[in-house]
Amino acid sequence: MTQAARPARGPGRRPGPTETREAILAEARELFAEKGYDGASLRAIARAAGVDPALVHHFFGNKEGVFIEAMRFPVDPSVLLPQIMSGPRERLGEVMVRTFLGVWGDAARRAPLLAMLRSAMTNEKAAALMREFVTSALFARAGEVAGVPQIRIQAAAGQMIGLMILRYVLRVEPMASASEDELVELVAPALQRYFG
Amino acid sequence: MTQAARPARGPGRRPGPTETREAILAEARELFAEKGYDGASLRAIARAAGVDPALVHHFFGNKEGVFIEAMRFPVDPSVLLPQIMSGPRERLGEVMVRTFLGVWGDAARRAPLLAMLRSAMTNEKAAALMREFVTSALFARAGEVAGVPQIRIQAAAGQMIGLMILRYVLRVEPMASASEDELVELVAPALQRYFG
Repeated sequence: MTQAARPARGPGRRPGPTETREAILAEARELFAEKGYDGASLRAIARAAGVDPALVHHFFGNKEGVFIEAMRFPVDPSVLLPQIMSGPRERLGEVMVRTFLGVWGDAARRAPLLAMLRSAMTNEKAAALMREFVTSALFARAGEVAGVPQIRIQAAAGQMIGLMILRYVLRVEPMASASEDELVELVAPALQRYFG
Repeated sequence: MTQAARPARGPGRRPGPTETREAILAEARELFAEKGYDGASLRAIARAAGVDPALVHHFFGNKEGVFIEAMRFPVDPSVLLPQIMSGPRERLGEVMVRTFLGVWGDAARRAPLLAMLRSAMTNEKAAALMREFVTSALFARAGEVAGVPQIRIQAAAGQMIGLMILRYVLRVEPMASASEDELVELVAPALQRYFG
């Protein structure tokens, strides 16, 4: 696009912070789609957007922060995990059930998750992107913080993901109408078993 | 389409059994998509295909059989459930894990399941269709046979559905490479708890 084609912006006017932020996110989305989560570095995202890496840092903290914003991922693991781990260990299962219900129960937060999952079902690149992100930002870190082997974290996550699909996508009854407390009573012990 | 446009079939020749079968399935797919599983009767499917209901019965047994063929549903619950229930009750969890791995581990059987799930994620009618089928053909019957409340059947199914998504769609490690026996050891006790 030539300068002349941008009527709202005079020649030589520098883009404002909002425009720069959006430009970085647009480039990030492209790079993530092309290179995956592990393959797209913060430096490469900055280069593609024509800005200094320090500015990307300033706006988003780190690559994880860029991803969360660019993909509208409805959960920030660096906030969520400490929150889940803050309670007593014997209530980990309960807190995990309540946390999943909080995120998935909110249609606006559920939508981008379902969009990513849907893409992952058709497209290997989209699957790799989601796999790399959840592996490094969620599972690996959760396993570390909780001192639990990866496969047990994944079994617990699997329990909750499947439950969320039955409750919020297929909406089978009585799962769809069960109260939060009923679900805690039903499922928390199964999760707790994985956290041993 | 006029008779003249069908070069392979002379005027007045009656369609053969394969053509009739395919015509019934095509009409069934349309009716299921439009009316859902509960709303599409075997009689209405026969009427739409211009055949006697007895012929639909002859080809597919019942509505469930029509659905399984029309939607390429990779599992026949009337075969699968007795198989799962045939063993000792304390091994129900193990048999369920092995059964899910058998179906989802086969790419040709996984594909139509994922296609249905993907549609259900975007389209309320597709979600209703899948919900009605799994509720009446799988969950209700499994609950009855096993003498377990619906919500416990669904919690167990949720565990396996989420696990299958992590293993076969996202392919996170080590879940994706774990052996069948490892997964039985990890997950069967959680399922067994639901069947209590």
